[in-house]
Amino acid sequence: MPTASLVCVGTELLFGQTINTNAAYISSELQALGVSVLWHHTVGDNPSRVRQTLDLALSGSDIVITTGGLGPTQDDLTKELIAEVMGEELVFDKKAMDMMIAHFKSFGNRVPTKNNEKQAYLPASATPFYNEVGTAPGFALNKNGKTIMAIPGPPREMRYMMEKYVVPYLSALADSALYQQTFRTFGIGESRLETELLPIIEGQTDPTVATYAKDGECAVRVASMRPTAAEAEAAVKRVIASAAEIVGEFIYSYEDKELHHVVVDLLKEKNLIIATAESCTGGEYAQSITSVPGASLVFGRGFITYSNDAKKALLGVGEDVLSEYGAVSEQCAAEMAEGARLAAGSDIGVSITGIAGPDGGSVEKPVGTVWLGLSFGGKVTTVLRVFPNRGRQYIRRMCVLEMHDIVRRAVLGKGPLDKRI
Amino acid sequence: MPTASLVCVGTELLFGQTINTNAAYISSELQALGVSVLWHHTVGDNPSRVRQTLDLALSGSDIVITTGGLGPTQDDLTKELIAEVMGEELVFDKKAMDMMIAHFKSFGNRVPTKNNEKQAYLPASATPFYNEVGTAPGFALNKNGKTIMAIPGPPREMRYMMEKYVVPYLSALADSALYQQTFRTFGIGESRLETELLPIIEGQTDPTVATYAKDGECAVRVASMRPTAAEAEAAVKRVIASAAEIVGEFIYSYEDKELHHVVVDLLKEKNLIIATAESCTGGEYAQSITSVPGASLVFGRGFITYSNDAKKALLGVGEDVLSEYGAVSEQCAAEMAEGARLAAGSDIGVSITGIAGPDGGSVEKPVGTVWLGLSFGGKVTTVLRVFPNRGRQYIRRMCVLEMHDIVRRAVLGKGPLDKRI
Repeated sequence: MPTASLVCVGTELLFGQTINTNAAYISSELQALGVSVLWHHTVGDNPSRVRQTLDLALSGSDIVITTGGLGPTQDDLTKELIAEVMGEELVFDKKAMDMMIAHFKSFGNRVPTKNNEKQAYLPASATPFYNEVGTAPGFALNKNGKTIMAIPGPPREMRYMMEKYVVPYLSALADSALYQQTFRTFGIGESRLETELLPIIEGQTDPTVATYAKDGECAVRVASMRPTAAEAEAAVKRVIASAAEIVGEFIYSYEDKELHHVVVDLLKEKNLIIATAESCTGGEYAQSITSVPGASLVFGRGFITYSNDAKKALLGVGEDVLSEYGAVSEQCAAEMAEGARLAAGSDIGVSITGIAGPDGGSVEKPVGTVWLGLSFGGKVTTVLRVFPNRGRQYIRRMCVLEMHDIVRRAVLGKGPLDKRI
Repeated sequence: MPTASLVCVGTELLFGQTINTNAAYISSELQALGVSVLWHHTVGDNPSRVRQTLDLALSGSDIVITTGGLGPTQDDLTKELIAEVMGEELVFDKKAMDMMIAHFKSFGNRVPTKNNEKQAYLPASATPFYNEVGTAPGFALNKNGKTIMAIPGPPREMRYMMEKYVVPYLSALADSALYQQTFRTFGIGESRLETELLPIIEGQTDPTVATYAKDGECAVRVASMRPTAAEAEAAVKRVIASAAEIVGEFIYSYEDKELHHVVVDLLKEKNLIIATAESCTGGEYAQSITSVPGASLVFGRGFITYSNDAKKALLGVGEDVLSEYGAVSEQCAAEMAEGARLAAGSDIGVSITGIAGPDGGSVEKPVGTVWLGLSFGGKVTTVLRVFPNRGRQYIRRMCVLEMHDIVRRAVLGKGPLDKRI
């Protein structure tokens, strides 16, 4: 298994103003290529420390990827130091210069300064990584049994370079092709998911299967490196088909799409309009729906009914329901969902009413207690959840995800609506 | 100026599943203490690579801070390797063990396993950093002219250790006291802010003044290290008082409080109820208000009027306004704000209507065009913003921040409501 180290160059990373998200992204990509990442080093724009770091990285691993330090200023020395360490001359690359001129031109007809010319010089035997989204080209240098690649630091340019150049370059080097696909699940815990998938992943090294958990959700990346792209794709598809057989009901996207996008797309596809009634989430559910471009096709209005008065006035929740069962009750959630659907004249009405904390909890209804309501297809369904009290933001976020999954299951006709394991 | 390196130990960081946010946090704290951070190294749970990294870090800087690798398993070797590198024996610390037992007891009456005992061993001459929020104690070791500190990797425990032990330890080492305070601004660009503050920060090394910009906002941290805490505090307060004289109208918090918290607190203090009418933000403004605990004191209902029908039905926006000026217009924003206030019977009504993109823009009203309305104190005010088209999320977030600042300025009687430089 080839090994790699990252060398991230940039004083701003050492000041603590910028979180180094590049390192995780690059590592995750390398991991999918079957490359083992041994070190991340971050160092400022200091020539002797950058050189020292490059030496350490090159001596300890097969592949070194540097980010940053490719800019036009005197401080930007990554390329110069790599050339020095690898025993290379820097030579002018006309295509890099032409692309830079074109790039500047596209930004309000500007022209490169004298400084920028420095960016068009590359190590003599390097493979250039021309940059279509910024000014600094990157490159790969394969020499003395080591591969070193330099790419720009701004995350947008870094991602472009990884996708367009670094991943294909490393695949070619390994004389094989990478195929990867990520599916996403909701309602199944990460360790349970791993246990369920064990029969199909145990004892095999390709495809690799990696789980990425966040609150309530889990993404699973399946990656394969094979002699041909077709073989890699077939291997990945086989694993995903097996996974679908085992945990398919929890998979909401096979294309790494986010849950709220899946829901909006589904509503569009089925020509359904949704209306929202929110208490404890205070607009977060509607915000999530409307964060998807084109949401106006499936959403026209939402009610944030934080007070009991609002629940009565806007959704027609009965005074008796509020006085007898309280706002956080099955009955209130049901009337809110139905009330939202009727008031909006929509196909679906959803409601969220609960206790997000930090105050307002009781022994019977602790913080985290939430009732979710759904009015759809001529009937009203309610779901009770008691989330662990990991804070207000967590509880509200979980409410939104749960509600999305309930809508998804209802629209697809996949019950029970609230299956969670 | 003392120098420092971080050594972050944990294979999960190299897999790319976890973004290393600890490094930025610790760097920023060290920066405030006048410590120059030279390197971040991240390495997996591999003894020889961890040792190699510790050697490099110790040889290159005065202070080394390690995170992670203090757990109970065989993999957790940071402490053992530090002891080896520093020539120390590990000795049993009874207090650490007692605290661990108490910690386990507080979690459902559990008891430590045999493995956990390993966590109670510390280098013989170390200063223990007892852990009240987790099981692993940290420590500082000052030897051979170097200071090495080990703290746990989980961010919550890391922050606790930094605040409670590392910062005071380094202050004591420097024989001085740190005082720091952060103020937050809105409506002034970062470079403009730096230019305005130049007269009070130029040429001085203490207090240090660091700006941290994010969309629309800028936080400014002022930190001083002086022989006594009182002197440090006085020095910081002097700089902040001078800053307030120059850019005070843009400062919304002197206590590093977020803008939506400031607004909710202000509404509470003035006993004002706010109602919201949102189009392009689709609930994000109300979500921001209700994310603050206790928001129910100032907020009862909100209207998400995404469609024109909703604007008419729920807020009483005139058909003529919509047909003559469109939904993204001064007139519509005014009627939405007034309509929300009247429908809710509140003191304040706010409205946001604009084009968040990616579609829907035109030459006259490009993506990013937003009208913000405010009904308060017997009059209706509107503000036009044309945000750069940096994507839907950015435009919506900017709308929310702008609206908050308009409310803040209106409630404080600090006009003009939309001053931005």
